[in-house]
Amino acid sequence: MSALSLHPDRFFPAEPAVQAIARELFTRVETLPILSPHGHTDPRWFASDAPFEDATSLFLWPDHYVIRLLYSQGLALEALGIGDPNADRRAVWRLFAANYHLFRGTPSRLWLDHVFAAVFGFTDRLSDETADHYFDTIAAGLAKPEFRPRALFKRFGIEKIATTEGALDTLADHDLLARDWPGRVITTYRPDDVIDADKAEFAANLERFGALTGENTATWAGYLAAHRVRRAFFRQRGATATDHGPVTPATANLSAAEGQALLDRLLRGRREAGDGELFRAAMLTEMAKMACDDGMTMQIHPGSFRNHNAALFGKFGPHLGADIPFAVNYVQQLKPLLDAVGNRADLTIILFTLDETNYARELAPLAGHYPCLKLGPAWWFHDSPEGMLRFRRQTTETAGFYNTVGFNDDTRAFLSIPARHDLARRVDAAYLAELVATHRLDLDEAQELIADLAYNLPKAAYKL
Amino acid sequence: MSALSLHPDRFFPAEPAVQAIARELFTRVETLPILSPHGHTDPRWFASDAPFEDATSLFLWPDHYVIRLLYSQGLALEALGIGDPNADRRAVWRLFAANYHLFRGTPSRLWLDHVFAAVFGFTDRLSDETADHYFDTIAAGLAKPEFRPRALFKRFGIEKIATTEGALDTLADHDLLARDWPGRVITTYRPDDVIDADKAEFAANLERFGALTGENTATWAGYLAAHRVRRAFFRQRGATATDHGPVTPATANLSAAEGQALLDRLLRGRREAGDGELFRAAMLTEMAKMACDDGMTMQIHPGSFRNHNAALFGKFGPHLGADIPFAVNYVQQLKPLLDAVGNRADLTIILFTLDETNYARELAPLAGHYPCLKLGPAWWFHDSPEGMLRFRRQTTETAGFYNTVGFNDDTRAFLSIPARHDLARRVDAAYLAELVATHRLDLDEAQELIADLAYNLPKAAYKL
Amino acid sequence: MSALSLHPDRFFPAEPAVQAIARELFTRVETLPILSPHGHTDPRWFASDAPFEDATSLFLWPDHYVIRLLYSQGLALEALGIGDPNADRRAVWRLFAANYHLFRGTPSRLWLDHVFAAVFGFTDRLSDETADHYFDTIAAGLAKPEFRPRALFKRFGIEKIATTEGALDTLADHDLLARDWPGRVITTYRPDDVIDADKAEFAANLERFGALTGENTATWAGYLAAHRVRRAFFRQRGATATDHGPVTPATANLSAAEGQALLDRLLRGRREAGDGELFRAAMLTEMAKMACDDGMTMQIHPGSFRNHNAALFGKFGPHLGADIPFAVNYVQQLKPLLDAVGNRADLTIILFTLDETNYARELAPLAGHYPCLKLGPAWWFHDSPEGMLRFRRQTTETAGFYNTVGFNDDTRAFLSIPARHDLARRVDAAYLAELVATHRLDLDEAQELIADLAYNLPKAAYKL
Repeated sequence: MSALSLHPDRFFPAEPAVQAIARELFTRVETLPILSPHGHTDPRWFASDAPFEDATSLFLWPDHYVIRLLYSQGLALEALGIGDPNADRRAVWRLFAANYHLFRGTPSRLWLDHVFAAVFGFTDRLSDETADHYFDTIAAGLAKPEFRPRALFKRFGIEKIATTEGALDTLADHDLLARDWPGRVITTYRPDDVIDADKAEFAANLERFGALTGENTATWAGYLAAHRVRRAFFRQRGATATDHGPVTPATANLSAAEGQALLDRLLRGRREAGDGELFRAAMLTEMAKMACDDGMTMQIHPGSFRNHNAALFGKFGPHLGADIPFAVNYVQQLKPLLDAVGNRADLTIILFTLDETNYARELAPLAGHYPCLKLGPAWWFHDSPEGMLRFRRQTTETAGFYNTVGFNDDTRAFLSIPARHDLARRVDAAYLAELVATHRLDLDEAQELIADLAYNLPKAAYKL
Repeated sequence: MSALSLHPDRFFPAEPAVQAIARELFTRVETLPILSPHGHTDPRWFASDAPFEDATSLFLWPDHYVIRLLYSQGLALEALGIGDPNADRRAVWRLFAANYHLFRGTPSRLWLDHVFAAVFGFTDRLSDETADHYFDTIAAGLAKPEFRPRALFKRFGIEKIATTEGALDTLADHDLLARDWPGRVITTYRPDDVIDADKAEFAANLERFGALTGENTATWAGYLAAHRVRRAFFRQRGATATDHGPVTPATANLSAAEGQALLDRLLRGRREAGDGELFRAAMLTEMAKMACDDGMTMQIHPGSFRNHNAALFGKFGPHLGADIPFAVNYVQQLKPLLDAVGNRADLTIILFTLDETNYARELAPLAGHYPCLKLGPAWWFHDSPEGMLRFRRQTTETAGFYNTVGFNDDTRAFLSIPARHDLARRVDAAYLAELVATHRLDLDEAQELIADLAYNLPKAAYKL
Repeated sequence: MSALSLHPDRFFPAEPAVQAIARELFTRVETLPILSPHGHTDPRWFASDAPFEDATSLFLWPDHYVIRLLYSQGLALEALGIGDPNADRRAVWRLFAANYHLFRGTPSRLWLDHVFAAVFGFTDRLSDETADHYFDTIAAGLAKPEFRPRALFKRFGIEKIATTEGALDTLADHDLLARDWPGRVITTYRPDDVIDADKAEFAANLERFGALTGENTATWAGYLAAHRVRRAFFRQRGATATDHGPVTPATANLSAAEGQALLDRLLRGRREAGDGELFRAAMLTEMAKMACDDGMTMQIHPGSFRNHNAALFGKFGPHLGADIPFAVNYVQQLKPLLDAVGNRADLTIILFTLDETNYARELAPLAGHYPCLKLGPAWWFHDSPEGMLRFRRQTTETAGFYNTVGFNDDTRAFLSIPARHDLARRVDAAYLAELVATHRLDLDEAQELIADLAYNLPKAAYKL
């Protein structure tokens, strides 16, 4: 058995003088409240406040980072109990524990260890030897009131968290929350389900969209009006932002006639090649225009080839770690949107990327010029020590710090939220310490910046 | 108020042993003369030797790095006095000073602080508190003889500087300079205005080009002859190099008949899609062939989407920081040129990129093979501590140091030239120190290299 | 004259605490046997055990890394004796020695210095002054029995080495080796010569392929059967792996009818645009299917524009350093193959890249999901301290360590093999030490990993 502990200087530079600066900076933000403006926790957890079940369903099954790495090493999804709530959860947990070494060097390992040590108090590393001890201790913990979602929410120091819901969601859980636990959990409008015309259910979704809003979504004007209705509905449940996951960052600015013609082709079986992409592209611009009107912050997350593994998707569905990034182009593809609203200083569009080549080449120059653009933090595969450092190194010199928006944990792994913010704050402290130690920034400025990055910038960008 | 000072170890690695090596290396080149073989200072400054006006028109208005970052944060260009020489310059300066924190972490901040401290002797950081003190002190300084352009030129230790002029420029200022201040300020032949057929003024420019040279620029042979005439004219004003800013690095090698047919299409309204690109491509090869004849060094700066912000360009014109890099391909696009002249060891073509993905993938392998190719330094957005380090880390192992050409300040901000060379020399010292400290290079070699990078390589590559 | 010595802490981080960890880790693997599962040594060397000739033919002529850098600096290939075994080898060596400074900062310099110091005992750096001393000492050494190939093989601690042979190779040297020196030198099946239909000799090669195997290679079924025959033949000579160098990573999965139609077009002069690419693409998938049957590990090395310098290729042939990487796309191009066999956990496909932008964006996510995929080490231009660090930094967080396969020396420079493995082990130790020092990995895990990376992972991935 090996000891598990969280070193107080973890993720700081090793050089003692730089480390001391990083530690001093981090100490200033270590206990600041957590703002989580973009994520995928389930509002039902907080609405029902029911206890979590067990280690396997809490840590393993919902975490596509973990599942994919186990799968990549030859472990069958069946053996991991995927899709089978009746699987032997202890057996699955033992299998995971026996393969915990596979996560060496990955952020999943850092987050999990943080949760194990800080939330459950484990002092030995997870392994085949400690698997049962972990499983039992976690089960015992989860049964206690202090491990209920709302208690953890408070313990974690979360000030506000945003969940993400589709355009057709009833927001029933948010309604409940607004009544008995107001102001903490807000929703986000993510209308991909009524925008991605390449999905089989698009036409049906548009019908429901019309029924929900009383608009005729077969007309361009009615379809846009339906979005306005739903945006207002989401804003009433606390939403301050929208989120968009198009395949590419392509944008287009269509006239009403062009929009109607496109919608007609899509809904009446006369679809042409590229129409799905054109519709997504047009809707990014329309969403930006609506954001100018209603003040919602807009987030764009492009560039993932979803469900790349066709056989696995057919058998087990999405969210198993088979979404693979590809090269994208922002400079040409965002231009129609930017030509339409790019110079609006009262609009905030937050850009994310999985293609890091764009950090220095396209995104920092764009955000360093257009008033409406800000850069989202290192996303998904890049939400890691090296990934976050690459983000800062490749964007700061061109876009500065004030065109960025702090950290997003972007997770459905609720218990890992403090771990992720801790990691992000430490890496930012490390980066700032390096700037101070090499005399590229004064210490008083770094002291101000560390709080901006941890708290003030997300608060402002997301209007929290 | 916060103190402003230039730390003697700035930009060196923080680890004491490596820092000591860097310091020792830097000391060897700290006071070497400055060679500035590529830049955009105005020859009139040196020809007239008139005093600079004030802080705002000297530091703010001409600096697209600064303007774009202020604009990106919602400051209106009107409030910055852009395009309005009658604007209240002190008010503009105060606005800039109040927003100086936006530049934290950017090279603009490092250059400006250097100028403020080293040239004007400020000991407090620029801020809203010190704005007036800065404005007044700078005004008082600029009124003195020792702040006139030629005095600063001498004070800065500049041995030779190249300006950049279009093919149609009369070089009148260079003529003046040659008469009363010879040998210091040379021109560079940048014929984009008569090569970029996608510009509205192309046909008119070709007429002027013909008139200037006595050649019939409506014929391919006459057009090429006109270039030869102008290249010789520029050489008489000291030029040793040409510079080219095509959209992409596309090259083509046309026969005389193909060239004539293309020129006919362009000048007689029968332009086909791609003809503008083809003409630029063909002219890169023709310029390289002429360089084989007249010995001029050729520079290629591709990959910028100029004036990306259409509305802003319409209102305020170019040079406001709305030029955005995009992905380019050198390996296929340079091939026609390289097939024509790539094996010439007496030809020097210096390649620049804004797409850093090419450093290791394409540019270092190309420059590490073709005798005619050299790599220009980290350019534009990458002229920064991290950017220069990425350049060295990603090119040196494949292309070595001797296929690079030292530093270009590439600036119209005359007062920042010492700051930029200081930064470049320090970053090179830091990189070399790291190689020495990790036993990848011997100290005596680093001592030789630091002088090569600072002085000998640019002198040789640009034939200064 | 400057001293030559190999510092015991070379390539380790400079910070003393991190360096100490790296040193401790490296010490654990410094003397582990060398596994060289992918390379280009000549099996004849080991079969004949004849002495090597002299410094020039041993170190200079076969090394395209060295030749290209000398050529890039204007040295004529004729002056280097390329293609002329009767050239004055001492004169060529002197020319090389006088230009040894050009290699500063390159891995070639590190490897050569290692060979000079560790294999020949030189204590002064190579230079024009020491050129003759080097040439003579090397000649005297090579004449001794302990410098014969098999003696060096033993001295270097090589446990097993794989050479690479084309599909039409007789493997005569491997037959000899199997008889009198078994188990050490194995072959690898590299069938590019019968797969690359864009090569002039394709049709002739297919005829020989048919003659060798007794199959009718003009039929799709017979052509595939011929591969199966040859794979079995190679396996009898020890092969455990195949290697493939397609232009791009494009894959396709053709029906038998489609395969036959394509083969017909290629062999009967009715070739269409893209048919060469389609045939290579289809064959990658067929090779993967055969690997599922016969258990051979499959390696894919795409993305090099071979013989980019047409004039040089015409005059001197291939292998002179004019192969230039270009941007490639794995996520879309590998999909047909992955759809066919991607979920096979008993298949190992090792992906390599020269386009580092794919490390984090595509390759680590793909290898971190698909059971069949593993990541080959930093390849070719990236087989260097910075290149190997970029590989680890950009792949580990997403793919972990266990989806990588240890080091490949990939060299024809036999004497440099210990130098290359030494460098790779040191850089891995440096990377692991950094993880330990920043508390991203425990020391006991790093101790296990360093041995995995140096020995256990290649042994498993290549079934050695």
